Amino acid sequence: MSKKPKLKIIPLGGLNEIGKNLTVIEYGEEILAIDCGLAFPSESMLGIDLVIPDTTYLARNRNKVVGLVLTHGHEDHIGAVPYALKNFNAPIYGSRMTLGLLEHKLKEHGMVSEVEMQTVKPGTVKKIGQNFKVEFINVNHSIAGALALAIHTPAGVLVHTGDFKIDCTPISGEMINLTRLGELGKAGVLAMFSDSTNVERAGYTMSERTVGERFDEIFSKSSDKRIIVASFASNVHRIQQIINSAVRNKRKVAVSGRSMLTICEVAMELGYLHVPKGTIIDIEEINRFRPQQLVIVTTGSQGEPMSALTRMAFSDHRSVEIGQGDLVILSANPIPGNEKAVSTVINELFKKGVEVIYESLAEVHVSGHACQEELKLILGLVKPKYFIPVHGEHRHLVRHARLGEMMGVLPENIFVMGLGEVLEMNQDGAAVTGSVTAGQILVDGIGVGDVGNIVLRDRKHLGEEGLIVAVVTLSNEKEILAGPDIISRGFVYVRESEDLMEEMKDIVTDAVLAGRTSGHGDWNSIKTSIRTMLGDFIFDKTKRKPVILPVITEV
Amino acid sequence: MSKKPKLKIIPLGGLNEIGKNLTVIEYGEEILAIDCGLAFPSESMLGIDLVIPDTTYLARNRNKVVGLVLTHGHEDHIGAVPYALKNFNAPIYGSRMTLGLLEHKLKEHGMVSEVEMQTVKPGTVKKIGQNFKVEFINVNHSIAGALALAIHTPAGVLVHTGDFKIDCTPISGEMINLTRLGELGKAGVLAMFSDSTNVERAGYTMSERTVGERFDEIFSKSSDKRIIVASFASNVHRIQQIINSAVRNKRKVAVSGRSMLTICEVAMELGYLHVPKGTIIDIEEINRFRPQQLVIVTTGSQGEPMSALTRMAFSDHRSVEIGQGDLVILSANPIPGNEKAVSTVINELFKKGVEVIYESLAEVHVSGHACQEELKLILGLVKPKYFIPVHGEHRHLVRHARLGEMMGVLPENIFVMGLGEVLEMNQDGAAVTGSVTAGQILVDGIGVGDVGNIVLRDRKHLGEEGLIVAVVTLSNEKEILAGPDIISRGFVYVRESEDLMEEMKDIVTDAVLAGRTSGHGDWNSIKTSIRTMLGDFIFDKTKRKPVILPVITEV
Repeated sequence: MSKKPKLKIIPLGGLNEIGKNLTVIEYGEEILAIDCGLAFPSESMLGIDLVIPDTTYLARNRNKVVGLVLTHGHEDHIGAVPYALKNFNAPIYGSRMTLGLLEHKLKEHGMVSEVEMQTVKPGTVKKIGQNFKVEFINVNHSIAGALALAIHTPAGVLVHTGDFKIDCTPISGEMINLTRLGELGKAGVLAMFSDSTNVERAGYTMSERTVGERFDEIFSKSSDKRIIVASFASNVHRIQQIINSAVRNKRKVAVSGRSMLTICEVAMELGYLHVPKGTIIDIEEINRFRPQQLVIVTTGSQGEPMSALTRMAFSDHRSVEIGQGDLVILSANPIPGNEKAVSTVINELFKKGVEVIYESLAEVHVSGHACQEELKLILGLVKPKYFIPVHGEHRHLVRHARLGEMMGVLPENIFVMGLGEVLEMNQDGAAVTGSVTAGQILVDGIGVGDVGNIVLRDRKHLGEEGLIVAVVTLSNEKEILAGPDIISRGFVYVRESEDLMEEMKDIVTDAVLAGRTSGHGDWNSIKTSIRTMLGDFIFDKTKRKPVILPVITEV
Repeated sequence: MSKKPKLKIIPLGGLNEIGKNLTVIEYGEEILAIDCGLAFPSESMLGIDLVIPDTTYLARNRNKVVGLVLTHGHEDHIGAVPYALKNFNAPIYGSRMTLGLLEHKLKEHGMVSEVEMQTVKPGTVKKIGQNFKVEFINVNHSIAGALALAIHTPAGVLVHTGDFKIDCTPISGEMINLTRLGELGKAGVLAMFSDSTNVERAGYTMSERTVGERFDEIFSKSSDKRIIVASFASNVHRIQQIINSAVRNKRKVAVSGRSMLTICEVAMELGYLHVPKGTIIDIEEINRFRPQQLVIVTTGSQGEPMSALTRMAFSDHRSVEIGQGDLVILSANPIPGNEKAVSTVINELFKKGVEVIYESLAEVHVSGHACQEELKLILGLVKPKYFIPVHGEHRHLVRHARLGEMMGVLPENIFVMGLGEVLEMNQDGAAVTGSVTAGQILVDGIGVGDVGNIVLRDRKHLGEEGLIVAVVTLSNEKEILAGPDIISRGFVYVRESEDLMEEMKDIVTDAVLAGRTSGHGDWNSIKTSIRTMLGDFIFDKTKRKPVILPVITEV
């Protein structure tokens, strides 16, 4: 008789500073994937559009993959699906909202018909493959249709919280199903994955409803102004509250920004967003109304350069001219790294005489993630044997691990994991036993993975120091026939540096002579000689180190 | 009889998102400059080292400049002095600490002997030129030797707060001289410039002393650990408190980081930093002590890539190996824009098992700038006729202006100024009457102002998209003799794109033919043809737009 296999857990994403969540659950010959998100590039990833998880492991085991379960529809949980689907073919499970957003995304990639999607509701249990029964549990989050998972396997029950908060007065849907989580805990949970985003914040996250109350106050105090609210497009609850306040204050609502339009459409179609007839008007129609009759809902809460709000601030928006008499509400927090961009937009709005209400001044935003007391409460209800903090930077995982200890999980049963590590477990024990290929893949244009560290290093060098091309034509005998010529980009104003350019030509001439008599006296020697001598000369003159590209042609 | 001239106020810095403070006060034929600081480049200024104010106006009026007064020794108030001194020659006034730091800076630029410096103390009054009597007033700030100014002119008295906070229990020196500010207000102040940095924060800034109390608690609770404290090098009060807590807990103090060493040296020499004998040890000597006997004071509180703390975190520090058993205190707030870098360092420290205490968790930092209640208090004491908020982003100036109104300054007497604007005033009225050359000058290496928008635009393009050089040698008849060759940098991995490179060569061949028969059929036509056709081809294939540099040689 063969021994019962152990359950394997392999995080392929979600443990880094940047999102791109993806967790692999493996039992015997079957793999279940949870979420498949993208991340936005950090500043050092010059020119990169997106970052996705390395799914080599799924590609190598494509026949094992029995399903992909999505907890909710945020980009960091669904954004890499179009890329990952090239590596396996299995049904995708998610709430109507999540799959509605995914469908839209797949259409953009021209690939919708190939994919089997199964809509689930809170309370649904789906058998996936032979070994997994996945139960979907209602949670609260900053997007509609967010779900936690209880994954029943032959080795025991896993609970995955997804992203969540506890909101006792949610805008739509019900409060998080704490009872079911408690029942699962009472019956015995083998392991839990829990959201670590807000682990550094004490107390409780406020209810989304408090933002609506604040909107009501602001709207009624600002009856002489046009109101523009910037928020995350995906926060349907927030948009619902803006619409509610608008309706109560007899204002029409216009929507600006591509992602905002998309999500509003999907959410209205699926019944997640309730808008009284005649409330929404086209952004092109706003001039038919007085400013006091209008609310504009817009993207750009992160100061994104091409977003609708940024274009308004810099007088570059096709339909909205902004100025005195306008009130802008930034109903979002800057995501770390975006602070400067947001600040620039706020200053620009002030310069135009716009009134601006933003987070450091007023309660116009609440987080979608659980704070310490909520995290402890979930730990206390689910009482997992093993605990794996996820969704956070490394320091968040460590701090969440400490909360786990505080709540009674044995220290040796808590795993702060690294990308690609394989955690094997059953009721008798758990241990990291190895690792698989994991990491990040950069997407640039339509190229996936063809830009890596060397290319990025070159981009950084070119971007910070600029470029000098030294062109020289040599005869067979390595005599200079034409040139040297110097072409520069991103180095200095050429007109103001003509002397320097002339001196560079002389140096290149010297370098060709030196290169001919050094090393093998071949092209490579000459190129090396140009790089070295010209580099030294330029550094000496300017204390800069541009990229030097010798171009030698021979006739 | 000639009419009495009006007083002119011209801000040449200090009104932007970035520091580089510089204010010009002009009366008749005399100019007094206040502060002359630098700013650090924003992310979009690729490769730039420093940003300094445009001092063309001072250069054009070099004979009028009678003095430069420095309020305190922070880089954003003194950092551009070595550059500005090329444009005028006048005595420099400041506290011992300020001039000590300036002297060090001038030495680095090899220019100390040429400059006349006059040390002043709180209470000193200096006659500068024929028209200015400058009175120096003690204030509290995050550097020792900070001063406010009362500038007595024939047109009336100006008060410049410099950077300040109200600290009733300062670490050294005295509480800000509110009495003198009140006396000046009682006698009548024509105009006030006041620090707007913290205008968005309600209430009062906590006393520096509260940080020391927190250090004491942490030090006594952590008697089993080595302690490493990162802070701003210039915050001598903070360093004093670290030393005090170290001495109380019988620990030696080692200093790491170039600027920290410099400032500690200057501050000790001038008596601003009091260190019991035998307390300071060389960083190379730390291995002679047990970890529990040590405190290391270090730079790197902003996550700067080359700073001592960052090098420790990434195991790249020559003398300090960091790990389990170490406690790092980040005694500073991330300056806007540095959040990500700081976060990366914190995560790295956590990965090494280091305990980290940082601002969002504990009161290990207080600001050096006044909050709303302090700003109002100063407005209430000085009661200026005209009010000019300075030192802040545009939105801060606007909010500070509103505080001014609230405190009784007439709205038409409050001026939110732009760089280079000329505000003329006397007791009868004040108005912006024109503007002078002003702005920012970029410093890259030893080049001052030779990098501007076009060069930066090229750097951004090169950095984000990379470079393709297409090389071809033509005969007199424009027949291809050699090539085309394709050289790329920062574009894609060439090895994985060999087919693409081959296709590019064919396109360039076609482009040469097309260019020969289009336009004038000269080099420029051929170059344009290569740029267009190759650009279109690459965009079509990759959705990217690298810089394309055609290099044609003719023999």
